[in-house]
Amino acid sequence: MKTVEKGSFTLPGEAGYEELTLRLADRWGADVIRDSDGTVLSDEITKAGYGIYSTICIIRDHNRWAEKNQDKLQQCFLMTHPSVAEGESLAIALMDGFFEEQFRVNDSADSMKYWQVYDRTTDTLVDASAWSYDAESRTVALKGITPWHSYTVSFLAYRIWEEISMYNHTTNNWEKEHLMQIDPVYPQTQEYMLDWMERWCETHPDTTVVRFTSMFYNFVWIWGSDVRNRQLYSDWASYDFTVSPKMLDDFAREKGYGLTAEDFINQGKLHVTHMPCDHKKLDWIDFVNRFVVDFGKKLIDIVHRYGKKAYVFYDDSWVGIEPYKPTFKEFGFDGLIKCVFSGYEARLCSGVDVETHELRLHPYLFPVGLGGAATFMEGGNPTLDAKKYWNSVRRALLRCTIDRIGLGGYLHLVEDFPDFVEYIAKIADEFRELKQLQNAGKPYTCKPRVAVLHFWGSMRSWSLSGHFHETYMHDLIHINEALSGLPLEVSFISFEDVKTGALENVDVVINAGAAGSAWSGADAWKDEEVIARLTKWVWEGGTFIGVGEPSAVPGYDSYFRMAHVLGVDEDIIDRVCHGKWAFEVDEAAAGKVMPEGAYVPAGRTCHLTDGKATVLAAQGANPLLTRNTFGRGQGIYLSAFEVTNANTRMLLNLILDGGGEAAYYLTDNAEMECAYYPESGTLVVINNADTQQECSIHTETGVQRVRLDAYDTLIQRV
Amino acid sequence: MKTVEKGSFTLPGEAGYEELTLRLADRWGADVIRDSDGTVLSDEITKAGYGIYSTICIIRDHNRWAEKNQDKLQQCFLMTHPSVAEGESLAIALMDGFFEEQFRVNDSADSMKYWQVYDRTTDTLVDASAWSYDAESRTVALKGITPWHSYTVSFLAYRIWEEISMYNHTTNNWEKEHLMQIDPVYPQTQEYMLDWMERWCETHPDTTVVRFTSMFYNFVWIWGSDVRNRQLYSDWASYDFTVSPKMLDDFAREKGYGLTAEDFINQGKLHVTHMPCDHKKLDWIDFVNRFVVDFGKKLIDIVHRYGKKAYVFYDDSWVGIEPYKPTFKEFGFDGLIKCVFSGYEARLCSGVDVETHELRLHPYLFPVGLGGAATFMEGGNPTLDAKKYWNSVRRALLRCTIDRIGLGGYLHLVEDFPDFVEYIAKIADEFRELKQLQNAGKPYTCKPRVAVLHFWGSMRSWSLSGHFHETYMHDLIHINEALSGLPLEVSFISFEDVKTGALENVDVVINAGAAGSAWSGADAWKDEEVIARLTKWVWEGGTFIGVGEPSAVPGYDSYFRMAHVLGVDEDIIDRVCHGKWAFEVDEAAAGKVMPEGAYVPAGRTCHLTDGKATVLAAQGANPLLTRNTFGRGQGIYLSAFEVTNANTRMLLNLILDGGGEAAYYLTDNAEMECAYYPESGTLVVINNADTQQECSIHTETGVQRVRLDAYDTLIQRV
Repeated sequence: MKTVEKGSFTLPGEAGYEELTLRLADRWGADVIRDSDGTVLSDEITKAGYGIYSTICIIRDHNRWAEKNQDKLQQCFLMTHPSVAEGESLAIALMDGFFEEQFRVNDSADSMKYWQVYDRTTDTLVDASAWSYDAESRTVALKGITPWHSYTVSFLAYRIWEEISMYNHTTNNWEKEHLMQIDPVYPQTQEYMLDWMERWCETHPDTTVVRFTSMFYNFVWIWGSDVRNRQLYSDWASYDFTVSPKMLDDFAREKGYGLTAEDFINQGKLHVTHMPCDHKKLDWIDFVNRFVVDFGKKLIDIVHRYGKKAYVFYDDSWVGIEPYKPTFKEFGFDGLIKCVFSGYEARLCSGVDVETHELRLHPYLFPVGLGGAATFMEGGNPTLDAKKYWNSVRRALLRCTIDRIGLGGYLHLVEDFPDFVEYIAKIADEFRELKQLQNAGKPYTCKPRVAVLHFWGSMRSWSLSGHFHETYMHDLIHINEALSGLPLEVSFISFEDVKTGALENVDVVINAGAAGSAWSGADAWKDEEVIARLTKWVWEGGTFIGVGEPSAVPGYDSYFRMAHVLGVDEDIIDRVCHGKWAFEVDEAAAGKVMPEGAYVPAGRTCHLTDGKATVLAAQGANPLLTRNTFGRGQGIYLSAFEVTNANTRMLLNLILDGGGEAAYYLTDNAEMECAYYPESGTLVVINNADTQQECSIHTETGVQRVRLDAYDTLIQRV
Repeated sequence: MKTVEKGSFTLPGEAGYEELTLRLADRWGADVIRDSDGTVLSDEITKAGYGIYSTICIIRDHNRWAEKNQDKLQQCFLMTHPSVAEGESLAIALMDGFFEEQFRVNDSADSMKYWQVYDRTTDTLVDASAWSYDAESRTVALKGITPWHSYTVSFLAYRIWEEISMYNHTTNNWEKEHLMQIDPVYPQTQEYMLDWMERWCETHPDTTVVRFTSMFYNFVWIWGSDVRNRQLYSDWASYDFTVSPKMLDDFAREKGYGLTAEDFINQGKLHVTHMPCDHKKLDWIDFVNRFVVDFGKKLIDIVHRYGKKAYVFYDDSWVGIEPYKPTFKEFGFDGLIKCVFSGYEARLCSGVDVETHELRLHPYLFPVGLGGAATFMEGGNPTLDAKKYWNSVRRALLRCTIDRIGLGGYLHLVEDFPDFVEYIAKIADEFRELKQLQNAGKPYTCKPRVAVLHFWGSMRSWSLSGHFHETYMHDLIHINEALSGLPLEVSFISFEDVKTGALENVDVVINAGAAGSAWSGADAWKDEEVIARLTKWVWEGGTFIGVGEPSAVPGYDSYFRMAHVLGVDEDIIDRVCHGKWAFEVDEAAAGKVMPEGAYVPAGRTCHLTDGKATVLAAQGANPLLTRNTFGRGQGIYLSAFEVTNANTRMLLNLILDGGGEAAYYLTDNAEMECAYYPESGTLVVINNADTQQECSIHTETGVQRVRLDAYDTLIQRV
């Protein structure tokens, strides 16, 4: 099988380590060498015949221009912590609690017209005549207000330290200059950037691919002044950092209505991606996306004019890019690079409509990794880290096509870790083999077509917002991670999609999340057409899987609006006097879907609605896993879901049971998975466990018996 | 000290056991002998010179009349389980799922005008033209409806088996006739009852006290057809069983607006007492209470005319009596009897404005007790049961005046339990001593005056609805039980009371409950005047103690509306992207308020709002007990509260700390409590533990050292 061509691998080169760079490029089969944030490439590297990726971050690294154009730095709305009025006047210091190195009050006239003072006790706007601003002390003084009410000021602040730079500084104790981020919303910035891009292309003739990191607007990351609460707010997919008076003015002109500070501040909650939003935020997303695409395309056109390709990095300043919106094609990007910890991130990358899909694997070549753990330093075990990360990502690669992989960071750090070098060589080869199989033809897929139903639909395919470790508290990211490597067709649909016929192409719908969240759906469940269509679809044979607080919305006879299908509803305070159906756990039925080690964590407390659902797992009187027949279909409820090898298999079993199919090409050991590629006649078996495992696989031509070492892979013709 | 007169004790006599009855009357110092449900008294007993209580249940025991007047049985609204329409028509069988022995459909014209069919998918009323009723099959047929929506029928049913009788039958496997309950709302029933009462008094010359059990309307207790879910709904304080077409018609005439089935059915949730209600339910409570008082008084007047006293039993058919409403005085009752498991029930009884307050102690003289556990039979230990119940009640008796105690049930059952006879003799004496102390003058009370703040205010003083074991899931019943024996002045106030100055007489306010519940307050917290008054009051020195989800209501900048005072707010899904303040538990501060064994259970997950609150207990990053300085006052937050001896002391310590007083007459052992009666110069010390304990007590004249056996009491002059 080792006849696969080398290539499809991006190596981080490092000036001063030319010999190492070229030796590892050869060892790992690299066809491309890249720079990284903090490294440069020397001529010896760039002239060695490899493709050259160069990273640029178009909104930072322009501090000289930024210094002269401080009114063109990026901005955002901030709200002061609520202050209680002890009398009829109150002074509120705007920057109290905010990180002074990140923010500077924008008290220009065009900014101040957007400022708002709120009485948060009544949640009403305070008339502008009741307050005044003192620029010297950066304080808002309120007069004639109601004693003992709480007040806030929402204001605009410049962001004076680009957040990724700020994070790297803080994490690595850098002493470098603080980089500022300039806002392309202004014609002058655009002119500067286009000119800069042109000059950059001229001066980088060896670069074959310009990697944009990423476009213009960072995910939201608001820091506090106190180290006990440094990260006041972070949301990887929200739009709060796209705000400026000009963008707001432009929006009002185009849309015919204006947005206020409160439309962003939302009582201090901001609008997290985990919550649904109103049409105003959707309009804002569209408007910013339109702007990012239009101006982004001008930069990409320059790159193309110089015969280079343009890739975009789907992280950091990615807001407004929206790779799953149809507008993404208009950028003209040639590739998309995704930094991956998890399988779902590989699927996220693979699903974007772009020519080249590339994964940036972990660990990065840094002394410390996630959360400050030792990696390429004493006490670190980067090979084991790499195995675990690869283990997470590999199962997704059995199911989707990725074109390239690569690493990032300081190459010289691997010198002390020869086993890491060998392990990367191994997985680089493994990746190339998998890619070749995928290119030859799709793997065998079980019949049920799964749709994940939530507020955002396809726009938030696979990811919620950010990495797994940032969103682990949501059931859905666990579901997505489990699905990322399962032999199933998976799509992401919205409630609008349900109303326009999306269920016709689906066998299983999963709705997983907390009540009120975007993932559960919140007010979308007030729409009777959604309920009726799903009800009919299940009755006619569909499987509705609800996790956590599926279809939950207050105000109706049941809290779960799909309770009639699930046969389960949540115990809410209104029903504290209602009796609960007694039940026995059906151990035999449970045994068929729950492999050894599988479990359902206890989420909210529930009850059976009519006593008819089969209970497969319970905690005392609280049903945790139930299956309810509804017409020719069924409703399945899980109190919560945590991704583990055994629980992933449980989810598959529940889906297959719903789909009614005894499938081929499944291992009989939940620690192991496999994929069969009919066009190549090849079976790939992976061991997801950290111990040796064996399994049998029921193929169309007989039973295959496989034993694999921890984390190992078998690729063989059958 | 044993100079206390005998008396103040009500003994359940039993015909056929005359010698035993009179012997125990002497042994226990009884002055009154009573009958019980299922027992009779013989002349030998009634002529023995004791006062005689006779129990009557005015709405049952009239089966002959009831049989002839089946249109005058009591009724209620029922809602069918939601049915999904597979097409444009649907048939709904009304009695599906309901206990046929409890309910019979009332399909008379005056009933059917109140029936309603609802589309529960849209939560809208279905026009009466779209449905018809088939009396033969007791089925409602719907036509022209929307496929895949869910529908319910709300209808009126007669209750054909009085619920207490039904429960006793079922529990004791009785074979007796099912007793029906007649509704005094009809003039004919009233005429019958008044006549019956008159004749009853004539034929019971020996009776000195008529004990009403209770008035007319039982607490809500809806049974299902399936033994797996027999008790569909039970709420000890709600008004669903007061409904009839006539009562509804009368209400509409008097109030000028009518109520519908949905006003009671409330989407099938009914209106549990644990939830706040709208003005319509309050109007209904007032209307029914007016009726119960007016007609009840006529019965009591008859009793008085015969020279007898009238006591009311505060249980079973107590709905509409409302001993804490000002109207209660109008009945003219001479006494109120409360069956008690807990201290708060003793306080509930004591607080009613009536001449005689009597407690019915547990265990009842039945073979089995609560939940079917053996009591007066092999395997039972009624003496230990009695000790534990007395232990719960006794600490309340140190704080409030009760005039009488007594037992109920079959006296002959005690014959095999001589130690039970001795123990009752002991606590009867103990009770009489405590009563004498209370009558001489109030015990020493610590300074802070505590008010429990909830939706119902004083109308639901001490009790939520029913006994502890029925309401244990609510933090507040644990709080009330802890408070019932603490040396504090306690009141129960509503949000309206806050607005009319109630805080002026209060040092500590406790708000404890789940979000949306009557106990937390729900929408009452939308009232800015409530917030402002409490805020000002705390700022000026008050202590606000919040438990669970205090002041929680959605729609504002904080979920806890008193978050600015508490320094803590709940983690709701909107804030999942917000950072949390890191904190250290202040072990020294915790040690001052948390005695050994005290704990705060984890309720909902919370965060510090501004990082300033002192954390006294935590579970990981979740603060469980916090104290926050606010002006000259403070906010204290407890994630949850469970009543134990140690936790009760913790609550007292938190209150005293808030009140700023180093109090006298507290034990230094949380397992023991004491009370000092200045007028009598007497100290009472109790051991609440099941093991020997000792303590020191700081008195105004020095330190007292006391050692007591398990559950024992010391009464001594100091």
